Amino acid sequence: MPIISYECVRATAEQKQALIEELTKTAAHITAIPQSSFTVLIKENPVENWGIGGRPLDQVLKDRENQKRV
Amino acid sequence: MPIISYECVRATAEQKQALIEELTKTAAHITAIPQSSFTVLIKENPVENWGIGGRPLDQVLKDRENQKRV
Amino acid sequence: MPIISYECVRATAEQKQALIEELTKTAAHITAIPQSSFTVLIKENPVENWGIGGRPLDQVLKDRENQKRV
Amino acid sequence: MPIISYECVRATAEQKQALIEELTKTAAHITAIPQSSFTVLIKENPVENWGIGGRPLDQVLKDRENQKRV
Amino acid sequence: MPIISYECVRATAEQKQALIEELTKTAAHITAIPQSSFTVLIKENPVENWGIGGRPLDQVLKDRENQKRV
Amino acid sequence: MPIISYECVRATAEQKQALIEELTKTAAHITAIPQSSFTVLIKENPVENWGIGGRPLDQVLKDRENQKRV
Repeated sequence: MPIISYECVRATAEQKQALIEELTKTAAHITAIPQSSFTVLIKENPVENWGIGGRPLDQVLKDRENQKRV
Repeated sequence: MPIISYECVRATAEQKQALIEELTKTAAHITAIPQSSFTVLIKENPVENWGIGGRPLDQVLKDRENQKRV
Repeated sequence: MPIISYECVRATAEQKQALIEELTKTAAHITAIPQSSFTVLIKENPVENWGIGGRPLDQVLKDRENQKRV
Repeated sequence: MPIISYECVRATAEQKQALIEELTKTAAHITAIPQSSFTVLIKENPVENWGIGGRPLDQVLKDRENQKRV
Repeated sequence: MPIISYECVRATAEQKQALIEELTKTAAHITAIPQSSFTVLIKENPVENWGIGGRPLDQVLKDRENQKRV
Repeated sequence: MPIISYECVRATAEQKQALIEELTKTAAHITAIPQSSFTVLIKENPVENWGIGGRPLDQVLKDRENQKRV
């Protein structure tokens, strides 16, 4: 009965399927709760709805990209 | 001031209105908190964002359908 | 697979059991999803962790009590 | 590492940016936790998914409008 | 910046540490988002606050135990 | 009707009262929604329930402290 919710900007169909399978396996292995008891719920929110450190996420990600290039 | 959130794949307009009315009535009756203090929030997430028992929900639902037919 | 979460200050053991039974029945009836697919999760948060209209909940509740007496 | 989530019907791009900046500043100032540790997540849900006092939010808002006009 | 929340009844200190490490590794591997961007939040709720299929979780678990013994 | 939830490790009584007042004022000012429509909900989770970058939060915080001292 544990519920794993995964909040992100977006995920592809392949990523969603892998997250459902692998997060469940991982948590079931650690907790010894049967896999059949788990629910995974992936929640997508557009990038402009996220802020990190008081700044919009897309600006934060651009700055990280630029720092890598330097 | 209690908040009832209802996470699902999707609900019709009629179902949403009924959920808002009936979940509030039910909870207000049980708790003796006035109906006016309740908020209901329905959250819809596409079927591919749900996993049950480590498997995508749509596969789980298909299997249940097939078992009924047998 | 729908998840009904009920956020409140606190609930008695009897209220919890009734909320689990009745919120599930109500939502299953409205949506035609089998009762067995529902999860209910009751979350309790102390009264000082709630604010309504920018004011602590316990003050709001005291004011309501006083208004009734007038 | 605190997470501020803001559940609403919808917000404009300008409002989102301001909410990210100002909610973070406000909470960082109060708690003395550095701004860089905060995440803000804005979640939008259509108006028909909200209920207040057991009634759909759009009806509640219409009634408030009408009361102002009287 | 993804947030993985894990709702359960309770977890030991060792399980919590393992969940934090392994859920992050698993999700970072699948999504190619750097591990450093992830937050994991474990939320514990007492067993009497959970209902499955309209019944209190502890009764559901007892029934499952009894079925195994038969 | 917006709901601001603030997830943290813990907050003092003074911080809670200030968060309720100030987050509401800030959001009401930005969105032009009346303060009376806002709910604030502060959720506290013990430090061992949080992970950042795949590591327990308390270790992350200790490392930050040590780096400041160097």
